[in-house]
Amino acid sequence: MPLTSSLDQIGENRLLDAWGRALRRHPAQANRMHEADAELLPLPGTGQLLALTTDTLAEEIALGFYTDPETIGWMAATMSLSDLAAVAASPLGLLVAVTLPRGAGGEYQAHLAAGLDGACEAVGTFVLGGDTNFAADASVTTTAVGLVEEAGVLRRVGCVSGEVVYASGPLGAGATVAARALTGDVGSGGRPFRPVARLAEARRLVGYATACMDTSDGLIATLDQLSRLNGVGFEITAPLPRLLESGALRTCQALGLDPLVALAQPHGEFELVWTVPARARERFEREARLEGFEPLAVGRTITEPVIRLCGEPPRLIDAARIRNLTDEVGSDPRKYVPALVAALR
Amino acid sequence: MPLTSSLDQIGENRLLDAWGRALRRHPAQANRMHEADAELLPLPGTGQLLALTTDTLAEEIALGFYTDPETIGWMAATMSLSDLAAVAASPLGLLVAVTLPRGAGGEYQAHLAAGLDGACEAVGTFVLGGDTNFAADASVTTTAVGLVEEAGVLRRVGCVSGEVVYASGPLGAGATVAARALTGDVGSGGRPFRPVARLAEARRLVGYATACMDTSDGLIATLDQLSRLNGVGFEITAPLPRLLESGALRTCQALGLDPLVALAQPHGEFELVWTVPARARERFEREARLEGFEPLAVGRTITEPVIRLCGEPPRLIDAARIRNLTDEVGSDPRKYVPALVAALR
Repeated sequence: MPLTSSLDQIGENRLLDAWGRALRRHPAQANRMHEADAELLPLPGTGQLLALTTDTLAEEIALGFYTDPETIGWMAATMSLSDLAAVAASPLGLLVAVTLPRGAGGEYQAHLAAGLDGACEAVGTFVLGGDTNFAADASVTTTAVGLVEEAGVLRRVGCVSGEVVYASGPLGAGATVAARALTGDVGSGGRPFRPVARLAEARRLVGYATACMDTSDGLIATLDQLSRLNGVGFEITAPLPRLLESGALRTCQALGLDPLVALAQPHGEFELVWTVPARARERFEREARLEGFEPLAVGRTITEPVIRLCGEPPRLIDAARIRNLTDEVGSDPRKYVPALVAALR
Repeated sequence: MPLTSSLDQIGENRLLDAWGRALRRHPAQANRMHEADAELLPLPGTGQLLALTTDTLAEEIALGFYTDPETIGWMAATMSLSDLAAVAASPLGLLVAVTLPRGAGGEYQAHLAAGLDGACEAVGTFVLGGDTNFAADASVTTTAVGLVEEAGVLRRVGCVSGEVVYASGPLGAGATVAARALTGDVGSGGRPFRPVARLAEARRLVGYATACMDTSDGLIATLDQLSRLNGVGFEITAPLPRLLESGALRTCQALGLDPLVALAQPHGEFELVWTVPARARERFEREARLEGFEPLAVGRTITEPVIRLCGEPPRLIDAARIRNLTDEVGSDPRKYVPALVAALR
């Protein structure tokens, strides 16, 4: 099967496939491996799917991307709620397993709880319960639970060439957070990172989107995974500065970096990326606008299974190499940025 | 409210209550804090509750109680499935967030997966999906999801004095695991620890049990928490050797320990403990036996809010001190056992 061998070029996919081979699959599960941002399970007699997703926030804490407990809590909630958004589910709630750094007292925990609660409140949901542990390295694992009509679920698979590609908002905000941590520029007075999972926007996509995925690993990794899953390519037609969130654009300018670095680095911003057939484009954009939602047109799907930037000449992006770059440079984030810049040249 | 102040004497309850104060509560949630082993949320129009529970397995790995990855996987699955059992839910599946020790290769992961899968298969359920990370300390967070009829849910609250107290099986198996690790007696050829979550047995309790909780922290902690929640006490009337799993009894004999140590130490065995009104005792036991299930009669609920062993004279157990002992002795497990023995004297 060619798709599998294409997926196989990415280390993270190989890891997931090894787990898939080692575990029996639920016979009623409504998604295959890789096919959706959340696990989907029919609730018999209801016409609905339970959407379930679990994720651990650890690396961003270890790298110093998130230092204050409120940001850690907010991001831990948002990363899982964003996966519910990508399947267009309505959240029922969040479960939280917190591993506190030894010595974290009541104040640390209260701020962490405030972050978790704030990210839930921003999308109209609640923390239902959880568990607390202590260890050397802090981490937070969240599990988001939601419901979605079987007929309205969004998956990563289903797009063909010739469709329009959108994002739910400007991209690259995660790059600024990473750049600040890596350059030690933590006191620059920027607003804290508080992305809101795009649950409300996702419901506008139902009936239009043929494939959808969140940008938790950045735009390029998202397009690349959609490319491998669907056997299509992606052409980015929008000028990059127009895709970039203003802070990310300023970060690239300040550091003398190609704006593409902000879209290719793997610390994502939790927007959604989705495809709409060209014939439905006008109707979709009109309806979205009526509801005050301005999707960002990113580009289009193409037959050739590559990621390229429109231009004279077009630029091909070696997305496989970029996605495997962490393995290539080891876990040293300071080596990562120069390697990424070189890989994008 | 006297119950709250009683719960408050236990460090773990205070920690949970602090989180409860910091987080908004879902208005439809069908359990209050402490009231059930799993979070309960109505699924509108179905008459059913979604049962959800998340837990992190970390301390038992750090202490060397579980060393091989298959045991780690099995126990991580069982601890959350056991919480579903305690509310009499039927499992829909399990989500798994694995934090691998750096350097854990494919074989380690395959054994971990086999353990997770085996514990799920033993109760007829499946791993639905998950997430993988690497860090210095290994841990596994599992989230179990299940369904239970609103009318058939079991909670920790609801027993009164004069009821019969049962356990789903012999107790103390966790003590042997802990003793082996702490004494370095790892090569004694014992069978690996593979408790099966008591999901099938829990369904036999519906209509009879007035309160139910799993023994994930050992029998005494379980009875103590039920005591604080229900404002009743517990008298253990069964001779202790009859309550003890055979390996635990041998461990106590070999180490010259009071059998009560095996029931009071906090590494549990994932049995269920529940109460049945005295008038329903005969019918319950007959029905259970017809289905091949032999519950173990532990004792009875009493008016006085204490935990005591029947005998001449009766022995009072200082359960609050025992449950807070980890805080008292610090995190050194070698100091813990002598302190526990002294506290039980």
